[in-house]
Amino acid sequence: MTAFTSISQFARMLRNLDQWLQRSVDYAQEKKFEPDVLASARLAPNQYELVRQVQSACDAAKYAAAYLSGQQAPSHPDTEKTISELRARIQKCVAYLDGFKASDFTGAEERRIAPPWMEGKSVRGDIYLQRIAVANFYFHVTTAYAILRHNGVELGKADFVGVTSWSELSDA
Amino acid sequence: MTAFTSISQFARMLRNLDQWLQRSVDYAQEKKFEPDVLASARLAPNQYELVRQVQSACDAAKYAAAYLSGQQAPSHPDTEKTISELRARIQKCVAYLDGFKASDFTGAEERRIAPPWMEGKSVRGDIYLQRIAVANFYFHVTTAYAILRHNGVELGKADFVGVTSWSELSDA
Repeated sequence: MTAFTSISQFARMLRNLDQWLQRSVDYAQEKKFEPDVLASARLAPNQYELVRQVQSACDAAKYAAAYLSGQQAPSHPDTEKTISELRARIQKCVAYLDGFKASDFTGAEERRIAPPWMEGKSVRGDIYLQRIAVANFYFHVTTAYAILRHNGVELGKADFVGVTSWSELSDA
Repeated sequence: MTAFTSISQFARMLRNLDQWLQRSVDYAQEKKFEPDVLASARLAPNQYELVRQVQSACDAAKYAAAYLSGQQAPSHPDTEKTISELRARIQKCVAYLDGFKASDFTGAEERRIAPPWMEGKSVRGDIYLQRIAVANFYFHVTTAYAILRHNGVELGKADFVGVTSWSELSDA
């Protein structure tokens, strides 16, 4: 479980998230409501709505890849308002993540990571990945899923993990 | 980011979860309702309630530690009905996780993992950890958090990550 395999897992989960959004659009059509109503849905008045959960999940993955490889993260402005725009944001992020190869993360675990919000402080790469990037990424992706479930979209644990057949895993 | 550091992170997140439950009890007292009402709260009628989210988070961590170290997992029956019992379950799980040392996971990434539900199939340790254990663990812990937020408990992202000061991380 390296920085590279974590980034690959983020990409896999973002593809799952894209599928949940597709299922949400299908559900809206079936129930005859405007799918973009879900874009502003939230679980608590002082918690992010779906749009910001998806943006934040993408950013957690994007910045982890950039920081851990020592690259500059591309700018992905938070302009999305619709499910369709969110899906495009996910595709843009996944394309960025897919561009990395294992060797880009050589030494990532020992690299000092200094995100702007740490205001001059830094943290070792492995700690950053485990305690900040992975925790934040799953927080936002799971909350996005929870918002959809709470609004009636038919999803189950297999959709979350994104496994339709165990043979996919058992071959590994 | 090894099997051992992932297990340590699970223990850290379970301690955070215990704090959210304490905050829920405080909130119930402040609002004058029975705290155990929250034990059966859920976000969707066909999704687990808080009790099973907490039990499942504990089990995801416990089985990951057992499988990846090649040990037999201790039995922790799902008998909890109250917040207080859930907190005891968390303590029991954390005590188990805290008993491991790094050397217990030597070769864990290459070990074949064959949980009973895979019905005779197996998966390599690093794939199991990344795609099953970590994904499931964060799924349940985040959903528990979301249930509490949805019911008005005052929690924020810092409570989720469990960081009160960045110096804790920047020393690493």
